[in-house]
Amino acid sequence: MDYRQSGVDIDAGNEVVRRIKGLARRTFTPGVSSDLGSFGGLFHLGAAGLRDPILVASADGVGTKLRIAFMSGIHDTIGVDLVNHCVNDILVQGARPLFFLDYLATGRLDPDVAVRIVEGLARACEDNGCALLGGETAEMPGFYADGEYDVAGFIVGAVERGRVIDGRTIAAGDVLIGLPSSGLHTNGYSLARAIVFDRLHLGVHDQVPALGRTVAEALLAPHRSYLRVVSPLFDDGAVKGMAHITGGGITDNLPRTLPDGTEAIVRTGSWAVPPLFDWLVREGNVPSADAYRTFNMGIGLILVVAPDRVDGTIARLAQAGESGAAVIGRIAVAPGRAKGVRFER
Amino acid sequence: MDYRQSGVDIDAGNEVVRRIKGLARRTFTPGVSSDLGSFGGLFHLGAAGLRDPILVASADGVGTKLRIAFMSGIHDTIGVDLVNHCVNDILVQGARPLFFLDYLATGRLDPDVAVRIVEGLARACEDNGCALLGGETAEMPGFYADGEYDVAGFIVGAVERGRVIDGRTIAAGDVLIGLPSSGLHTNGYSLARAIVFDRLHLGVHDQVPALGRTVAEALLAPHRSYLRVVSPLFDDGAVKGMAHITGGGITDNLPRTLPDGTEAIVRTGSWAVPPLFDWLVREGNVPSADAYRTFNMGIGLILVVAPDRVDGTIARLAQAGESGAAVIGRIAVAPGRAKGVRFER
Repeated sequence: MDYRQSGVDIDAGNEVVRRIKGLARRTFTPGVSSDLGSFGGLFHLGAAGLRDPILVASADGVGTKLRIAFMSGIHDTIGVDLVNHCVNDILVQGARPLFFLDYLATGRLDPDVAVRIVEGLARACEDNGCALLGGETAEMPGFYADGEYDVAGFIVGAVERGRVIDGRTIAAGDVLIGLPSSGLHTNGYSLARAIVFDRLHLGVHDQVPALGRTVAEALLAPHRSYLRVVSPLFDDGAVKGMAHITGGGITDNLPRTLPDGTEAIVRTGSWAVPPLFDWLVREGNVPSADAYRTFNMGIGLILVVAPDRVDGTIARLAQAGESGAAVIGRIAVAPGRAKGVRFER
Repeated sequence: MDYRQSGVDIDAGNEVVRRIKGLARRTFTPGVSSDLGSFGGLFHLGAAGLRDPILVASADGVGTKLRIAFMSGIHDTIGVDLVNHCVNDILVQGARPLFFLDYLATGRLDPDVAVRIVEGLARACEDNGCALLGGETAEMPGFYADGEYDVAGFIVGAVERGRVIDGRTIAAGDVLIGLPSSGLHTNGYSLARAIVFDRLHLGVHDQVPALGRTVAEALLAPHRSYLRVVSPLFDDGAVKGMAHITGGGITDNLPRTLPDGTEAIVRTGSWAVPPLFDWLVREGNVPSADAYRTFNMGIGLILVVAPDRVDGTIARLAQAGESGAAVIGRIAVAPGRAKGVRFER
């Protein structure tokens, strides 16, 4: 009996590692001090040019959006979702990404699929100036159905110590600026799939007239990174707090940047909810409160700024290429230590 | 239709996060600058007291050792396996751990199981002086069978720039010092399970006379961390290279620290292979070459030192509590750019 007979193919794994190396190398920034294949990835922090760095780290997955990749056979955008999700998670604390590592687990390793996944990771890492420093590819017979996999990402970025954005100075009267999402991003897929596949019985390649796109096109649109448009704002201190709208929607994520005793009042009519969300809510008969706690509803990132910084911030976002920024609400005093979100029409 | 009906329970997730927070907080070291619940975990690198730090990062999983946890219902040691595996992976490059993040994915979240997994993570993080800085708990209906999950770990450590251990100075005549493993660690489980369950038809609670333990006791023995016994060696520069013996065994891992044109000659009779490996090899009729490329065969970490540093290194290991260190081979010249391992009796 040998290892291959027990379902694990070390040679297939080594082939993937070889093919991945070339993809990863393209993402290497000046800080990278090791090649893939050493036990750990090495990164020289001095290359980031920070005086007193705070490292900001985050771990994430893609969730059941993966199911759309399995159904459509499109595997090269999942990595973009994962990297951009992670980039945004540390961006909201003022950090720029340094490096990223992935964990990819399958039942039986298909080298071509693995390479396509890593192509997406590498492309997004390159776009975000983030090194793909390493990762683990695990073949676990019996853990995943044929053709299925799970993938997790881990990012480390850095921010100068005095520049961490943590919402501490947010006060009543401050203004919420919302930035448009590019679709569902990576959240709400269990509900979206239940509506699209179980209730509407659509196929992944079916055209959806209300959207002018196929199901796969609508549901696989990659999670966007806000790094390029938001990081230029960091030098003038205008941004007091930020929220990345992920699982739990605006309802659960916006309070994470609020200090005790404040609440966010979001005006739901202040931005145009994209047709995808309207369609899902209508076809799924989803109560409004659930919709805003499940989907991003068209807003992927929220900035909190003082009232006198609103116009300047929106102008600088436009300069950086983001013309869709909109004022979507304000901060008010909340009783006691409460912090939450109230939706108004 | 709402999110709970589609199989995801945000409230159960929030309950787990609440219970995990207390466990994680116990692991916090002076560098930790954020509480869990912010989007990214914050770590102040200045607290590590390094002048010119190289960050060393690694991602890993537990592999199909998880299956033994599922079968036995013992979920609080898997986290120890994961953390210690990651700690060793960066230790071999001379790095001490700073922080760790986990990714835990299930089909349907059982808060009690999730908490037991994190208890193991937190205990091992505490033992290694490593902060459990954050993580992601993903509920993915339909991706994992009932009662099953996958867990991945990400670690970041640091080493002073001039102190990275990379095997560069390894030369013919250098000596291999092996440190004992505590069992299978986290590798070779697909083969071990095929032998124990498919071939021998044993149950997880069955007693194995050859081992004087139950199957679960033998197969769940936690992966040990070598940090405490090995890191005291780092100050005198004796250690030229190190290999953590994981998937691929000595055969695939030892060459990762060797420079081109060298090979390692490992004397297989120079240490006592523990009964667990003898038993698996015998009952599985595993060819010797496969055994050494699948299992660690009793050696979990290999140090490469110059001949005149052998006695001192073994003495210092003993002082740190490691009395099982043994000379297990040497380095020789290999033709051309080859680097590999040759096993001798």
